[in-house]
Amino acid sequence: MSLLTDLIEKLQWLPGIGRKTAQRLAFYLQKMDKAKVQELTEAIERARNQLRECSICHNWTEHNPCEICAHPGRDKDIICVVEQPSDVMVLERTSEFKGLYHVLHGVISPINNTGPDDLRIQPLIKRIESHNITEVIMATNPTTEGDVTAIYIANLLKPLGIKVTRIARGLPMGSDLDLADITTLTRALEGRMEI
Amino acid sequence: MSLLTDLIEKLQWLPGIGRKTAQRLAFYLQKMDKAKVQELTEAIERARNQLRECSICHNWTEHNPCEICAHPGRDKDIICVVEQPSDVMVLERTSEFKGLYHVLHGVISPINNTGPDDLRIQPLIKRIESHNITEVIMATNPTTEGDVTAIYIANLLKPLGIKVTRIARGLPMGSDLDLADITTLTRALEGRMEI
Repeated sequence: MSLLTDLIEKLQWLPGIGRKTAQRLAFYLQKMDKAKVQELTEAIERARNQLRECSICHNWTEHNPCEICAHPGRDKDIICVVEQPSDVMVLERTSEFKGLYHVLHGVISPINNTGPDDLRIQPLIKRIESHNITEVIMATNPTTEGDVTAIYIANLLKPLGIKVTRIARGLPMGSDLDLADITTLTRALEGRMEI
Repeated sequence: MSLLTDLIEKLQWLPGIGRKTAQRLAFYLQKMDKAKVQELTEAIERARNQLRECSICHNWTEHNPCEICAHPGRDKDIICVVEQPSDVMVLERTSEFKGLYHVLHGVISPINNTGPDDLRIQPLIKRIESHNITEVIMATNPTTEGDVTAIYIANLLKPLGIKVTRIARGLPMGSDLDLADITTLTRALEGRMEI
């Protein structure tokens, strides 16, 4: 197999990249500056090899604890629970939330064979027990699975006497937190209600 | 800048990849097997560093001359002229054409500041003068620029007594050869006419 067809095949490992797109990317890479191509592949390798889960919030980070957990200006008594690291990125862009995060790395989803034990729920409980947390915001996606996960965790936390809130449904049902615009997300944070 | 935002920024160098797609790719890469990620980045580097232009047809290749030019079973007296290496790939899939190719690496396009001297037109003339070529098929895209380039080259070749044909317009005007289906392309090759 030629280097080119090999590359085109491997690019199709990536999500949303079919044969045509892979071809276009492969040919574009040929025209790109060699140094830039190397910068890109090194960035991929570096990110893949050096990113770890933060031991506190379980977001991906190259420093442990991560920048947000280590930041002196953040409210240490409020935790926003999200499904994925990408959700932290999108919430940070609202500049609305000044607390800390907790990344579950998934949702409870029987159809995908993901149960509570596959998520970072136990570390969340331990974190809340050992720190002075006043509020936990459940910011899982406004989907059935996201709701189920939020309620499951809320039920675990209520015996601890913690205020548990859910981000407001400014987002239409069935959508994805990752794709929401900043205004909608900001409203969803402002309108959060106790569950 | 964090490794992740750095990677997301660099992925956006690629065509058709905006912030959201770059983010999705970056996060997907974190979940991929490390060895697979390395295979991918190596395929990118290898293709970028080892592919050269074939000294005969100017297609990208790791061997010189390329597999098609070196193949004993190909008709050496007929040349199909295309804009890009990707066009060779797509024409090869029709299994209709058994001759050789010539890749221009572009079209005459005053708006993009591309003139005849920026294309591999001189090597094509030399190639035709020094070999026994009976027909040249102009398979540039069915766009204004592709037509202009085809006619420009046809005018250069006619004094040499060569039959010059243009692939038939089975393709709708203004479309892209790269995106055509195989049947349309096969018909376009069959229906070629002298220009």
